[in-house]
Amino acid sequence: MPHVPINFDARFAGFSEQWSPRVVAELNDYQFKIARIQGDFVWHRHEDTDEAFIVLDGAMSIEFRDGRVELAAGEMYVVPRGVEHRPVAEHECRILLVEPRGVVNTGDAGGGYTAPNDVWA
Amino acid sequence: MPHVPINFDARFAGFSEQWSPRVVAELNDYQFKIARIQGDFVWHRHEDTDEAFIVLDGAMSIEFRDGRVELAAGEMYVVPRGVEHRPVAEHECRILLVEPRGVVNTGDAGGGYTAPNDVWA
Repeated sequence: MPHVPINFDARFAGFSEQWSPRVVAELNDYQFKIARIQGDFVWHRHEDTDEAFIVLDGAMSIEFRDGRVELAAGEMYVVPRGVEHRPVAEHECRILLVEPRGVVNTGDAGGGYTAPNDVWA
Repeated sequence: MPHVPINFDARFAGFSEQWSPRVVAELNDYQFKIARIQGDFVWHRHEDTDEAFIVLDGAMSIEFRDGRVELAAGEMYVVPRGVEHRPVAEHECRILLVEPRGVVNTGDAGGGYTAPNDVWA
């Protein structure tokens, strides 16, 4: 069995769409997804799960109804389940998401930013 | 509620022990742990879970009975459950582990490298 590293830069090179998470690995019933983000996402929440954001390159914010967290490369944050949030990024930012398989990117909000699941990079 | 980013460098600054994972975040019943590794770890396996390695700084290898994978900063690998493996690093390497809460670092092997769980950075 060949053992091949998952290289984030190489996987990002395969797509340019923003707000379109791509799966790069699975861990039990969880997925690691990379995404390019820029601009203001929709306010939403995930009722059934926490959601981890790890910034790989660039900077982003996660807005909450009671504040915000600023994240740069080398930083992460876990949004607790049920907490309404909105990811935003002035310039394109590359992130790694960790969450259970099947989580929809727009959570309870739906709308035009909703991306298909289980698309691999 | 203050929203504070988890900065990996800042968390690494709080400890110098190698092979001693420190929790930096929890996601449902999973944990994100940072670790400094150098040298040859023990061969072991985790019968009940996959285990994700993300290299934050430096380089490491994961040896398997049938090969090895070389990982550098910006790369990750998921060791499938039940697969015997041995992390090794020539120079100190900083990694982020993702796995369920309660996983022991030495798996089925035990021994002197066994670190306590739930120690936070």
